[in-house]
Parts: sequence; structure tokens; C-alpha cells
Amino acid sequence: MSDFSHIVTPACLIDKAKLAHNAKRLQTVCEAQNIKLRAHVKTLKSVEAAALYAPLPSPITVSTLAEARYFAEAGYKDILYAVGLTPNKYEAVNGLMERGVDITVIIDSLAAAESLTSHSRRFIGPLNVLVEIDVDNHRAGIAADSEQLLKIVTQLNTDNNIVFRGVMTHAGASYGCFKNADRVSMAKQECAGVMAAAAILGQAGIECHTISVGSTPTALAGCEHFGATEIRAGVYATFDLVMADLGVCQRQDIALTVLTSVIGLQHDKNRVIVDAGWMALSRDKGNNLHGYGLVADREGNVLDGWYVSQTNQEHGIIRHKEGKPIPADKFAYGSLLRILPNHACATAGQFRHYQVTEDNCTVSETWKSADGW
Amino acid sequence: MSDFSHIVTPACLIDKAKLAHNAKRLQTVCEAQNIKLRAHVKTLKSVEAAALYAPLPSPITVSTLAEARYFAEAGYKDILYAVGLTPNKYEAVNGLMERGVDITVIIDSLAAAESLTSHSRRFIGPLNVLVEIDVDNHRAGIAADSEQLLKIVTQLNTDNNIVFRGVMTHAGASYGCFKNADRVSMAKQECAGVMAAAAILGQAGIECHTISVGSTPTALAGCEHFGATEIRAGVYATFDLVMADLGVCQRQDIALTVLTSVIGLQHDKNRVIVDAGWMALSRDKGNNLHGYGLVADREGNVLDGWYVSQTNQEHGIIRHKEGKPIPADKFAYGSLLRILPNHACATAGQFRHYQVTEDNCTVSETWKSADGW
Repeated sequence: MSDFSHIVTPACLIDKAKLAHNAKRLQTVCEAQNIKLRAHVKTLKSVEAAALYAPLPSPITVSTLAEARYFAEAGYKDILYAVGLTPNKYEAVNGLMERGVDITVIIDSLAAAESLTSHSRRFIGPLNVLVEIDVDNHRAGIAADSEQLLKIVTQLNTDNNIVFRGVMTHAGASYGCFKNADRVSMAKQECAGVMAAAAILGQAGIECHTISVGSTPTALAGCEHFGATEIRAGVYATFDLVMADLGVCQRQDIALTVLTSVIGLQHDKNRVIVDAGWMALSRDKGNNLHGYGLVADREGNVLDGWYVSQTNQEHGIIRHKEGKPIPADKFAYGSLLRILPNHACATAGQFRHYQVTEDNCTVSETWKSADGW
Repeated sequence: MSDFSHIVTPACLIDKAKLAHNAKRLQTVCEAQNIKLRAHVKTLKSVEAAALYAPLPSPITVSTLAEARYFAEAGYKDILYAVGLTPNKYEAVNGLMERGVDITVIIDSLAAAESLTSHSRRFIGPLNVLVEIDVDNHRAGIAADSEQLLKIVTQLNTDNNIVFRGVMTHAGASYGCFKNADRVSMAKQECAGVMAAAAILGQAGIECHTISVGSTPTALAGCEHFGATEIRAGVYATFDLVMADLGVCQRQDIALTVLTSVIGLQHDKNRVIVDAGWMALSRDKGNNLHGYGLVADREGNVLDGWYVSQTNQEHGIIRHKEGKPIPADKFAYGSLLRILPNHACATAGQFRHYQVTEDNCTVSETWKSADGW
């Protein structure tokens, strides 16, 4: 146990109690609706963190095969790799199967299905595949009513070493839903989209064992997720300013902050310089409401109106949104501040270690995270 | 030696010939003007890369003490840590001195000077200090004519274990100079600012052994750097779209690209989905001219008008700037593309390994990089 005096800044702090509280919130939703929770571990990429929100033997979702290997090493067996698979990753996928991982991959085109079936001998066991459905026009996937859907699944089913398991989607457009009513609508649209795809396949005699949906705003919209067999979400465990701005959480729920030191004061320009630049905070500006993040004191109390207005690689410039002068008591040279992140996934991704606090200002553990691809 | 067939995407490619060519350009400038080149190693943070642009026993500049430790391990002795020092880093600085590193740190306030002198017993040997001068109102430092300057240096000189070495500045405002004439003006302003500070100190009988300037646009402006004893610059070794847009380099000089695979095609929306999102490309939008980067084919030929318009964590969405339909031949499922980065420092910072090409599409080496703080 140590206070912050031996922490070199910038450092990524995780509030363990808040993480556990946030984890419980989505667990409760999934338990109440009897839906499997397949947490996305991409935000913190840490086995120790996952122990709180996806304890073994939970199924998990990963965004890279490096994450899959790291979590497999820790004993996770049921892993969904939720980025469209390409042939140059077949070897890595097979490597996971050889380690005993029950991996599931996703595709969204006939070309990808044909590639998989023509290379199926490269996989030691049957490879689970989901087809990605686009429910909100925000990224990947095919429309539920696309004639491609049946062609893809038919192609997959020509091969005994490829197992079509069902459909999945990510309602990323929910990040633009600032009212809960809109998030409820989006959650319904999300489920309706994958259910429509499953119904079309059902008419062709093809069953979807898995109907997977997910995004933190829809998962926590407080509505039924009708038809879904599993929910994927990630940032709900830490939350961030984007989620707080939407109203999905309160600012005090945010479990991740960046600890930084004041390295300089420019009273004539009303600017405070800190040692957290974009290398620590990331360059994610979220909804462009808070620069590169909001400023809190070392205990985590938000200092109203103070935000990181600019960043360089290892410098952050703090200003007040109304240009107020720097109060002498809060920003002394060498003093510690915390920055609330716009986007926890991006900020956490800049660190390979997290300093874990149990008693707000007492670091109790250091967690490592996975890295790379 | 291997071609790209065994590279898992996304991957960071470094073109060794271009890196060497760019390195030589600034070396030639510094040699012609008889100014020491203290290259900033923050862009690639790689000893193997530095062997091309800052071969041992070159002096170097670092942006973190983790970089300093990593380069010290490789034999670098003369290291400038170019971010304002705070007390929670004294122990790490002393650790470097104990390893035999001749480290120099920077400060810009009397509070920082008083902190250093009151803790000087924590350093095993004399600690070299530069005072940061602000020449362009863009970040840290004090004005050359600030009455603080003499107070800071006088305070430093009260302590035998602290050695005032001189002044330094970073002309970051040069990143906004789109005409070479403006970069020449900025280079003159940069040198004039630190020379003015040195002159004020000289009048008080205090000599500046080091007068350090630096930024890639001013360093390569093609003018004399009058009075400077050393030049610091970093991104000149790889360059990027920001530098090309300024006119500091040509696009074909850019030595760093991100190799990515096409994971999906959406012909109805004129969108190509690739496996390089903001985790690989960074969220740096540079001058907001090219989204998250320009698209080139696997050989590195820019595909005119195609750019990364959106990113998620592990997805990039490529569009044509005029909304052109996707040509069938260039973006087939699984094919490789390269993304030219807006800001090489930010993009390189997302990777811990670089795939080094000597023959454009042949990977000859893998380089590691330093990480963290």
C-alpha cells in the first residue's frame, strides 16, 4: 500500500470500488433478463480488472488476437474476436484453438466465407463463426434483409470444419443517443435487426444458436433485450465523460483517471502546464465538450470549469472554460491533479500498467494490460 | 527476410532507406552550420532506428524518463529530458545519474528551482539544468525578458550540486507555418528568443554553455540558426502528413506507414472497412485535412482521394473525398493497404514493434520501442 508520493506521473488510476460497482450494474441487468454477459475486455485489457467484471469462467469479447492470447493464458476459454477476420489472422486463430480456446470469429461477406471454407483445413477443429449484421449504418456488417446473408451462411455450411453459430451486431450509433428514450429505441432497433436476420435464416431451416448484441448505452438503457442470447459491452466497467454526457452514468461513477503533476504555471495566460499530454490522455476528444478531459484534484473532486484545452506529446495545457485566473491554492508547482478521460478505452490503451486505488488516494495494486495485435 | 504475407495487420512499417535519407538531411544542415544535433528520439523510441539518425555516442533528447533508461541501457550517455521536471521524478533522474548518464533537465519557474536546490542532496552528482524559454507563446517556458529568469538562475547557482547549463526552447508554433518564409521567420524568432535570454544572463556575469533550439519545421527552414549551440528535432526522421502539408517534406519522404487489411466492403455506402482503427493510427487528425490518414496501396503508392474518414478502436472506414464508388481492383477483401499518418509521433506511439522494410515490400527486421513513463 502506498499513497501517491511514489507514483511517477502520468499514471493511470483505476478506482477498484467504482469498477466493481459499475460491473455489478450490468451483471444485474443480464441476470434479471437471463441473458449471458460476454463482457468486452478491450477497455482495460487486464486479467486483474476482468476478475471484477468477467470472472473466470465467463465468456469474453476481445478486439485483438493479442488480447485473446493474453486472456487465454489466464484461463479464459470462450472468446469472441469481434473484428472481421482476415486470412492473415488464420494462423493466430488456429494457434488459439491449439491452446484449447473455444474461439468464435465474425465475418460479413461472401468473400470472407469463401476464404474461410477454402482454408478450413488450416484450423485444427471446427471454427465458430458469427455473421455481423448492421443495424444502424455506423460501421461493419450487412443489413438483416441483405440477400448476402443466406449466401454467406450457406457457404459456411458447406464445410464441416466451419460452424455457423449465429449473428451479432454492435449498435455503435447509440453513442449519439443523448436521451434515454433514444437509447431504448436503439436497443430495440439493435435486437430487432439481429432477430430479423435470425428469422430469415430460420425460414431457410438454419438455426442461430447465438444472437449477440452490445454497446454500453443500449445495454444499460433499462429495457428488455428481446431475443438476444448475449450482451457484449466494455466501457461500462470504467465509464468515461462520453458516457456521463449521454447520461448513461454519473461523473462520479468514472473509475479511470489520469494522475498528473503540475510542471508549470503561466499566470499571465491563465494556463497550467501538466505532464499528461496526448501520449497519456490519448487524442480522443469525445464529444468535443471537454477538450482532452476534465480536471479534478488529487482526491478526484472535479474542479468546476477546468479542462485540458491542448495537448502535446507529454504536455497538457489546462485552462478554465471561462478564462478564469489560476487560483493559487489548487495548482501549485509539483501538485497532483487527476484528468477524467473523454474515452476510457483510448486513454487506458495508452498505458501498460494501471495503479489501482482502494481508498481513493492509496495505491494498493498495479495491474498489467495486454498490448498490440 | 519476408514479404508481407506473414505480417499480422495492423502493423507499423518503417522504410529504412527513407529514414536514412531524412536523417542525412538534418545532419547535413547541422554539420554545415557546425551546430550539435541532439536528435529527439520520442518519435520512434527505438535504439535500432536511432542508430540511423543518432548513432552512438550522439547526444539525444527524450520525452520520458522511460526513454532515457532505455537509451541509457543501449549506451547513450548525454541525454536531455525535455519536459519540465517535477519532484516525483527526482528519484528516476538520480537513478539515471547512478547509471553514469550525463542527464540534463529543464525547469521554468522559481518554484522548480527552489525545489531542486532544497532537494539537491538527493542527486549523486551535479545535475545539469536548462531553463526553458518561451519564444512563441505556444506551451511552456518563460519570456526571455521575464524578471523570473535571473531569479531562477541565481537560485540554481546557490547550490553546488546543481549546475545551470543554459537555455532551451521549442518553437512549436512553427507547426502553423505553411510557408517557408514563415518558418525562416520563426527560426529567427526562436534563436533571437534564447539569445536574448543568454544576453540578459551574460550581463549578470552568467554564461550559457548550452543554447538549445528545435522543431523540425524551423530546423529544416534552410536558414542559419544564429547563436544556437544545438538543434533538437524528432519527426524529421520519419516525417508525416503534417510535415508534408507544411511543405517541410514531400509525401514520398514519409518513412512510416501503417499496413492494414481490408476486412469488409460496403459498395452501397462507398465505404471500405479496414483493421486499422484509432488504436493503430492514433486519434491524431493533424491539420484536419486527411481524416485519420491517406490511403496507399501495399507498395505505398498513394491512392488519390482515398482517406480514413472514421475510426473505431480496431476499425477504420475508408472513403473517397468526393464520394467515389469503390473500384473493384484496389480494395478486395483481405487485400493490404497502407495508411500514411497525420502525425508520426502519435502513430508510432501506438506500436511497440516496427516492421522494417528495405525493399519496399520486404520486411527485413523487427525493431522494438520503449514505452511508458
